[in-house]
Amino acid sequence: MDLLQGLKKGNKRAAAKLITMIENRTEGYQDVLKEIHKSSGKAYVIGITGPPGAGKSTLTDKLVKEIRKQDKKVAIIAIDPTSPFSGGSILGDRIRMNDLSLDPGVFIRSMGTRGHLGGLSVATKSAIKILDVYGAEYIFVETVGVGQSEIEIVKSADTTVMVMVPGLGDDIQAIKAGIMEIGDVFVINKADRDGANRTRAEIEMMLDFSNSEFKPAVKMAVAVDGKGINDIIDEIERHKEYLIKTDKYHHNRVTSAREEIVEIIKENITDKIFNDHLISSQLAELTQKVVKREIDPYTAGFNILKSIKL
Amino acid sequence: MDLLQGLKKGNKRAAAKLITMIENRTEGYQDVLKEIHKSSGKAYVIGITGPPGAGKSTLTDKLVKEIRKQDKKVAIIAIDPTSPFSGGSILGDRIRMNDLSLDPGVFIRSMGTRGHLGGLSVATKSAIKILDVYGAEYIFVETVGVGQSEIEIVKSADTTVMVMVPGLGDDIQAIKAGIMEIGDVFVINKADRDGANRTRAEIEMMLDFSNSEFKPAVKMAVAVDGKGINDIIDEIERHKEYLIKTDKYHHNRVTSAREEIVEIIKENITDKIFNDHLISSQLAELTQKVVKREIDPYTAGFNILKSIKL
Repeated sequence: MDLLQGLKKGNKRAAAKLITMIENRTEGYQDVLKEIHKSSGKAYVIGITGPPGAGKSTLTDKLVKEIRKQDKKVAIIAIDPTSPFSGGSILGDRIRMNDLSLDPGVFIRSMGTRGHLGGLSVATKSAIKILDVYGAEYIFVETVGVGQSEIEIVKSADTTVMVMVPGLGDDIQAIKAGIMEIGDVFVINKADRDGANRTRAEIEMMLDFSNSEFKPAVKMAVAVDGKGINDIIDEIERHKEYLIKTDKYHHNRVTSAREEIVEIIKENITDKIFNDHLISSQLAELTQKVVKREIDPYTAGFNILKSIKL
Repeated sequence: MDLLQGLKKGNKRAAAKLITMIENRTEGYQDVLKEIHKSSGKAYVIGITGPPGAGKSTLTDKLVKEIRKQDKKVAIIAIDPTSPFSGGSILGDRIRMNDLSLDPGVFIRSMGTRGHLGGLSVATKSAIKILDVYGAEYIFVETVGVGQSEIEIVKSADTTVMVMVPGLGDDIQAIKAGIMEIGDVFVINKADRDGANRTRAEIEMMLDFSNSEFKPAVKMAVAVDGKGINDIIDEIERHKEYLIKTDKYHHNRVTSAREEIVEIIKENITDKIFNDHLISSQLAELTQKVVKREIDPYTAGFNILKSIKL
């Protein structure tokens, strides 16, 4: 409860401790989330995603520095593959070393992709809520991969910035197909490299096929030199205005809340399976039978479902 | 049932139709999966993963052609982001256009990342089973992304080939951390490019920290010219022998079966929520309350759980 008081007053340590509590699912974490839910929902959430090597961290760094000029409190959540060897996060360390971490108005946190039985997207949404109540006006969520889970995570952002880079070769087709639907602002970073105009043209052509009401712009940037940053911020602002004007802002949050509830239900079912001694031994026994081809996994699953008390 | 007969006789069309049935979750799909489970488990599954632009498709193509020289039946499943605009798969089309598709001993199928309510990893495992019963001795599963879902998918492979490429910049740290634990064979593709030796050294250094019994090798390749292909096949073979000798082969399949059962349980719960009219209206109503901050999502989730009849 002291932590919750601290959080509401904007205490960084309280925010950090509460996020850890949620990541570790320390007893009482659900009470914390229940308690803070009613004070949350004010922050604007910006997702930053794109393929590895696109320079997403650098771009996030520059965007945050620009927003800080307006003296707004900012938080960054870096979704970060956790090293099995170091036991810690790697990208997070890289980010934390930079000068942003010295700014008292910036909260930086990396969240690993391991050990989230209930799914990383639930943990991320919970961390967003904590940082919202902590007082962050803008929350950046930066993912490393471009996989399905990462798409799930950035889907819950209000505005998603898709960072591309010249020279992805044929894979750009596949990436574009997977991400086109979730990008609200497109950035060709490292635009001083060969092929930037071609990549831009390819993305614009693909966007032309879309019949969605909001037409995302494709912006060129060289984040490392600070080039194109203001343009991107203007685009984020344009998208935000569009969302609010069309009530999509509210509609998206309804979708996100529905998904969160369904995820919580699934998380709870998984908990019941692994925390109940009888059910987990039943699972172990039936798994052996499935491997021996004595029964099939559907029959096994339905048998276990019968043992779960809701 | 005609389809099942056809499948067991190695009919390609029957295999394709059954996979479509599972993707669309056409009525009776669970019966098909129950039926084929007992005849499955013979194929050797090879996962191919790595960041976009690493040349995974080309490498898969060459590996398959080499294995075909031993006259073994091969299947390829390409996990493929589906375009929201074209409605079809993009990577799949690209693969299908090549000459492998003319080989009667090769079955190629792309599976989209959309519309899998129950999760893509369940659908992939089911497709693997179908292709196993169809008679494929080797099944390649190629992913596009390097996200968490893709890692889940390749985790169910017997041997996973991690394809890297020089010039990923700082992101290599993050990628390495996320994938190191699942790679059994490492390939630096496009090894004629600058920085290949450095990338190799970085990966080898990281592998040195691992205390796992099996030491993966890092192989150089230029897949487009067919260079390094035999080396990679030898490494896959070495890993396969290791798995069988140490009984890890069996152990991994137990883990995979357990995960499959848990996924099936979650899939079933999701079905119950969305197919039951009363529960889905309850979800819609509680979602509105969560958005209005009248209740929190945990309370909403627990209320819905009470309404689900298992």
